[in-house]
Amino acid sequence: MAVVEHFIAAAEAAADAAGAVIRPLFRSRLLVEAKGDSSPVTEADREAERTIRALLAARFPDHGQLGEEFGATGTDAEYVWVIDPIDGTRAFVTGRPLFGTLIGLLHRGRPVLGLIDQPATGERWIGAEGQPLRFRGPLGGTPGCRPCPALSDAELSCTSPSMFTAAEAPRVAAVQQAARRVTWGGDCYGYGLLALGLVDVVVESDLKPWDWVPLQPVIEAAGGRLTDWSGAPLTLDGPGQVIAVGDAALLPEVVRLLAG
Amino acid sequence: MAVVEHFIAAAEAAADAAGAVIRPLFRSRLLVEAKGDSSPVTEADREAERTIRALLAARFPDHGQLGEEFGATGTDAEYVWVIDPIDGTRAFVTGRPLFGTLIGLLHRGRPVLGLIDQPATGERWIGAEGQPLRFRGPLGGTPGCRPCPALSDAELSCTSPSMFTAAEAPRVAAVQQAARRVTWGGDCYGYGLLALGLVDVVVESDLKPWDWVPLQPVIEAAGGRLTDWSGAPLTLDGPGQVIAVGDAALLPEVVRLLAG
Repeated sequence: MAVVEHFIAAAEAAADAAGAVIRPLFRSRLLVEAKGDSSPVTEADREAERTIRALLAARFPDHGQLGEEFGATGTDAEYVWVIDPIDGTRAFVTGRPLFGTLIGLLHRGRPVLGLIDQPATGERWIGAEGQPLRFRGPLGGTPGCRPCPALSDAELSCTSPSMFTAAEAPRVAAVQQAARRVTWGGDCYGYGLLALGLVDVVVESDLKPWDWVPLQPVIEAAGGRLTDWSGAPLTLDGPGQVIAVGDAALLPEVVRLLAG
Repeated sequence: MAVVEHFIAAAEAAADAAGAVIRPLFRSRLLVEAKGDSSPVTEADREAERTIRALLAARFPDHGQLGEEFGATGTDAEYVWVIDPIDGTRAFVTGRPLFGTLIGLLHRGRPVLGLIDQPATGERWIGAEGQPLRFRGPLGGTPGCRPCPALSDAELSCTSPSMFTAAEAPRVAAVQQAARRVTWGGDCYGYGLLALGLVDVVVESDLKPWDWVPLQPVIEAAGGRLTDWSGAPLTLDGPGQVIAVGDAALLPEVVRLLAG
């Protein structure tokens, strides 16, 4: 199946509409004064997802939807949209511009289209099966993963040490020690940087389908791989243990280290 | 002493010139292809510091200079400029736009002027003794720390777990557990967000004078405090254990937890 252009156009329109909802709250007084109370963020999250869902439902009434805030509807349909309105809530709340809006499309359960939009930086990645990665934004960068066959040369990215269980942490530490360097923070942004050849490996855990489904087509369109910790394809009901590599040659060593 | 306007203008001109050196390398092919080899970054670092030093030396031939790449010259002068051309090398190398250029000014050893410039995002913070914080940039935000008297409500920011020694790590973990939430990554950006009332506490270690001297006037101009782990003023020859708080009421509890 080639991902049809009107699916891509719809994902772009939905991201545009969500960004218009999200941007006014970023670094707003409302957010500053609500410290200790997550309700303004929750409201931005919910309103952005409502906006995305309404736009997609109007264009594709037969498609299913699965989102962080409003759950699953019609997920037995041939096509299912997967939505994370604000990926990186901590970044958003603390004024870091690296949070993102994620929109993915499953065809018979397989991720075939993914969009990463950064409402604050103005960057957007679009990966569609059978097509090269599209990337645009004011900060520069060239789409495509870079070669990096040796883990000792690899830049590793990871959002937070607290995403790992006590059993997972030492295995992840082994990957960190074998890599050239670790950079913390970033949420979906780390995967976007991997798709630009600036990061070589991302290892994370506890990701939900709306966190990773939209990333997979972006990474694959850039020439990389997104798998579970055994190197197998991710599944919607799995524990969300994710490896992303820009160079598939890295995968066996990362899998071996994560096996403990 | 009021920081004279032509000192501020010189710091701004130096940051402008450094940004012009740094921006072309950010996310460049040169950087992508040099993976595993830090020389392009080192060269950007050195060239940016050379540019800053030359500009300041031309305007203030009697002032000393202390920088990350080219060390100390004339540091017994009444005024000494303190320079970190690229704070956040890991962020820079991996394409994250949150690295910064830091320029500070010591008067008889006391930080009286500080500038944080983000060449990629276009944001700039300027703190000068006796003046309110100046901040500008395209992402919004209002200068000034926010009230946050309880650590349990506080947003904590920290660049990386690897900056702490084995002796320091459990003390820092105690602060993390007492805070509302921890966000990782950011280097100087975390301090900038504190000065916008979006982050409440930063705890870091192993900072060099060029890492913290430029931050102190920014944070003080925003109404916050920058101290060592005992709550005392930082010194140029200390271990670089830093606490930043937006609300001084947080300081005693953070100091107590860091004392172990």
